[in-house]
Amino acid sequence: MAGEVKKMSVRLNFFENDGFDFQLMRSIGLNHYGGASIGECLSTAKRIRDGDVVSWVDEWNATARMIEEEADVFRERDEIISARDSYLRASMYYRAAEYFGFFSEPSRRENWEKSKECFQKAAKFFEALCEVIEIQFEDMKLPGYFIKPEDDLKKRPTLLIMSGFDGTSEELYFYLGAGAVARGYNVLLFEGPGQVGPIHMYPEKPFRPDYEVPVKAAADYALLRENVDEECLALVGFSLGGYFAARAAIYEKRIKACVVDSPVIDISRYYEGFEHIEELAKIKEEDYEELFSENPFIRWAVETFTRRYGTKTISEALDKIKEFNIVSDLDKITCPTLALVGEGEGDEAIFQTQRFYEGVSGSKALRMFTEKEGADSHCQITNLSLMNAAVMMWLDGVFSK
Amino acid sequence: MAGEVKKMSVRLNFFENDGFDFQLMRSIGLNHYGGASIGECLSTAKRIRDGDVVSWVDEWNATARMIEEEADVFRERDEIISARDSYLRASMYYRAAEYFGFFSEPSRRENWEKSKECFQKAAKFFEALCEVIEIQFEDMKLPGYFIKPEDDLKKRPTLLIMSGFDGTSEELYFYLGAGAVARGYNVLLFEGPGQVGPIHMYPEKPFRPDYEVPVKAAADYALLRENVDEECLALVGFSLGGYFAARAAIYEKRIKACVVDSPVIDISRYYEGFEHIEELAKIKEEDYEELFSENPFIRWAVETFTRRYGTKTISEALDKIKEFNIVSDLDKITCPTLALVGEGEGDEAIFQTQRFYEGVSGSKALRMFTEKEGADSHCQITNLSLMNAAVMMWLDGVFSK
Repeated sequence: MAGEVKKMSVRLNFFENDGFDFQLMRSIGLNHYGGASIGECLSTAKRIRDGDVVSWVDEWNATARMIEEEADVFRERDEIISARDSYLRASMYYRAAEYFGFFSEPSRRENWEKSKECFQKAAKFFEALCEVIEIQFEDMKLPGYFIKPEDDLKKRPTLLIMSGFDGTSEELYFYLGAGAVARGYNVLLFEGPGQVGPIHMYPEKPFRPDYEVPVKAAADYALLRENVDEECLALVGFSLGGYFAARAAIYEKRIKACVVDSPVIDISRYYEGFEHIEELAKIKEEDYEELFSENPFIRWAVETFTRRYGTKTISEALDKIKEFNIVSDLDKITCPTLALVGEGEGDEAIFQTQRFYEGVSGSKALRMFTEKEGADSHCQITNLSLMNAAVMMWLDGVFSK
Repeated sequence: MAGEVKKMSVRLNFFENDGFDFQLMRSIGLNHYGGASIGECLSTAKRIRDGDVVSWVDEWNATARMIEEEADVFRERDEIISARDSYLRASMYYRAAEYFGFFSEPSRRENWEKSKECFQKAAKFFEALCEVIEIQFEDMKLPGYFIKPEDDLKKRPTLLIMSGFDGTSEELYFYLGAGAVARGYNVLLFEGPGQVGPIHMYPEKPFRPDYEVPVKAAADYALLRENVDEECLALVGFSLGGYFAARAAIYEKRIKACVVDSPVIDISRYYEGFEHIEELAKIKEEDYEELFSENPFIRWAVETFTRRYGTKTISEALDKIKEFNIVSDLDKITCPTLALVGEGEGDEAIFQTQRFYEGVSGSKALRMFTEKEGADSHCQITNLSLMNAAVMMWLDGVFSK
């Protein structure tokens, strides 16, 4: 029996609904490198009906539009720094609106597109050089960004950074992208099949267990660039990206270091730790329509889960997820690894982190962030600054920078 | 009869005690340019007993020490960006500890000194050039910082920035200093008599109504520097600095633009709007000792208020404060002015802002920030990014930059 999986131990308690409270904290935590202002987040949250996903989407969209309009005014008046800062925040507020949207309605995709658009408008005013890129993969073009500290040809250590179930490459900029570039690294932020951008672009291409295949395409892309030091190529995965990155590290030996935050080695067991998942799995497909009209939260959960895993029901998705398991292959991870987890993430997340750490073959480190450090949360969203410091110190050591 | 004076309309509700809840929000809001991580703030707040000033000081000091130790480790390992970021946060956590300290105990001054020390350790790693300065004024050396975007001799528009009752020049870096430097301005952050630094250094030199005198010393200092464009010298005052700056603008004509956030033109009337002030004023001096041992909050309030105004009792301070009044001199403010206030600051703060706006003679603008903008709070601490954008757009216009 799996233990619990949670998001954090220190709550805001602005919402009673756990998911809403964590997602609000996520929005606020993105203030790291300018993805939020707490006043805009709380003012938005105050207008949202607790637990009502429709209200969530509407209010974040309203805030995002307001901030985007501000940004437009600043840009027109040549107030470059202010325009950049407002576009960055608008981008993350559109992302928040995307999160609780319905795949069966166009607004979810529109919020994603606006999030991307605002980020790209901001990126024109970055000091670092930020290129919007596409990675050719099978018949898809995976979206992403290549950011380098200076516009030169110097070879630099390079991070391939991935998110998980619901993050975007834009969001990764605030998580670690900006922090790595500030420390002299190139970063490639990208999304693979089933993740936010690709699932909007290619709804028929869900998550796949063999994530080393899209990661190979990203590594190919990076290594073709003249300014990437091939001896210093690292892969970083956040949230469910902790599975994708670990899986890729088993096969992709051009990856010279791997950071997993947190390591997920058995997604099936990880999901068992979620509240409500069993109840959701019991709902029969023929009952979806009626339940959806009664309960928008269930509609959102079912639509989101089944779309990403490419199934018709939650129950089928949970079956399929059994393939997402690397428990018996951990010893094939031979590069140096850093395993990260928050102590507020629950027993199961901590258990999988420890098993990962014990199982891998290369040099390794494990850090469990604490509540005292203000970093007990999933992906350390409450203290990205500390997570950045820990990740970059470890990488500097591995690459003897 | 004066109206109410409040701090904000959107609360965190992490503490029931209003003052604690606002001070926590202030700490979190300083994440603008890296002065906080929300996880560290909430983890600290969770350990604090609601309304207990001793607990507040102890827990912020504990967090500050922890983060400072992290910073020391990063610095030893040559992790410059991480060291800088941690010193910045430690600096603001020591500042929070200073806030609710007792002047009659050495720890209050120690927390101020540590706040300064950590900030200065961080400042060595700024991209901009940050000099620790002293402004000779009467027999005092007023503490401050002169920050310029590049280490050159180019003449640039320059902001003199002041705080109010309880802010420090270090804190001003996060409020507006960093944002102004990012936009190509020089900034001089400084503190005058009665403010945090000077009152620790010169306990016998309280606030004075004729604040144009210390401001003149700061302007003299700035104008001696080769890289200050004397046609583009602006003065900015936050919180009670809204009085100090407005007062100085009446007399100091080298100030070419003045930003007051918010304008306080009659401190006496402003204080009438505070909860509890009347009760505190009724306490007799002979009852202080007994009450102080029973109620540390009262001890803190009385010690803080009387020290800053240089009186023995609150009642005497309120008498003295009647001199802090510029109602009949507003027309002598002839430079362009920008008046800022949050709609959550209460009727009295808004009333004084409007009277200021109506009374001044130069070209003028008034902006009332709203709850919808997430900026209804005192000094817009919940949305410093928006306040920065508004201030800098206005200044760029005045100086036709």
